[in-house]
Amino acid sequence: MNASVVRPADAVLRDLGGGVSRRVLAHTDDIMIVEVHFEAGSVGAPHTHPHAQATRVLSGEFVFTVDGKDVTVREGDTLAFPSNILHGTRCVKPGVLLDIFSPMRTDFL
Amino acid sequence: MNASVVRPADAVLRDLGGGVSRRVLAHTDDIMIVEVHFEAGSVGAPHTHPHAQATRVLSGEFVFTVDGKDVTVREGDTLAFPSNILHGTRCVKPGVLLDIFSPMRTDFL
Repeated sequence: MNASVVRPADAVLRDLGGGVSRRVLAHTDDIMIVEVHFEAGSVGAPHTHPHAQATRVLSGEFVFTVDGKDVTVREGDTLAFPSNILHGTRCVKPGVLLDIFSPMRTDFL
Repeated sequence: MNASVVRPADAVLRDLGGGVSRRVLAHTDDIMIVEVHFEAGSVGAPHTHPHAQATRVLSGEFVFTVDGKDVTVREGDTLAFPSNILHGTRCVKPGVLLDIFSPMRTDFL
């Protein structure tokens, strides 16, 4: 698979409902960058997946619950989770998360 | 391995010389987020690695050369490379790249 270059204007921001929208950015089979936009009070319900995940807070304020523990994160903060760990988030101040998955999330395409 | 949460102030920005500095952020065995700061004119020399890589341009302007092709990228643009592909970058306007590797780069610790 070739290298992938994606500019925000080239990617559709898809409304997922509940104040959350998602834009899939550059990806190969092995890795995928995704932007997730949250309105204040919106949630990413607790879930698991076999993909490794890393997240960078681009803006806003979020409370993450990872493996039963809460942590408040803001712009510039980063998280990384092992595969299959239960995690979710609640948006305190509207903002954008940059989520990276390995391998890619075929379910997002 | 537990989840990792890293705030920028908790991570040392290491001077690599040549106008480039690097800060390792959240990581697990499977995935690692790294910030790389570039002064104008500085370069990331062409190289390969077995890790999958994704990059988000946080600020500035860069010319990436990936597998022999040049592409100019700016804030918000994203790239993803297959493993072992030759890639390098030249900073046109000073800025910061967010590089994500899978698995983690043990050579960065």
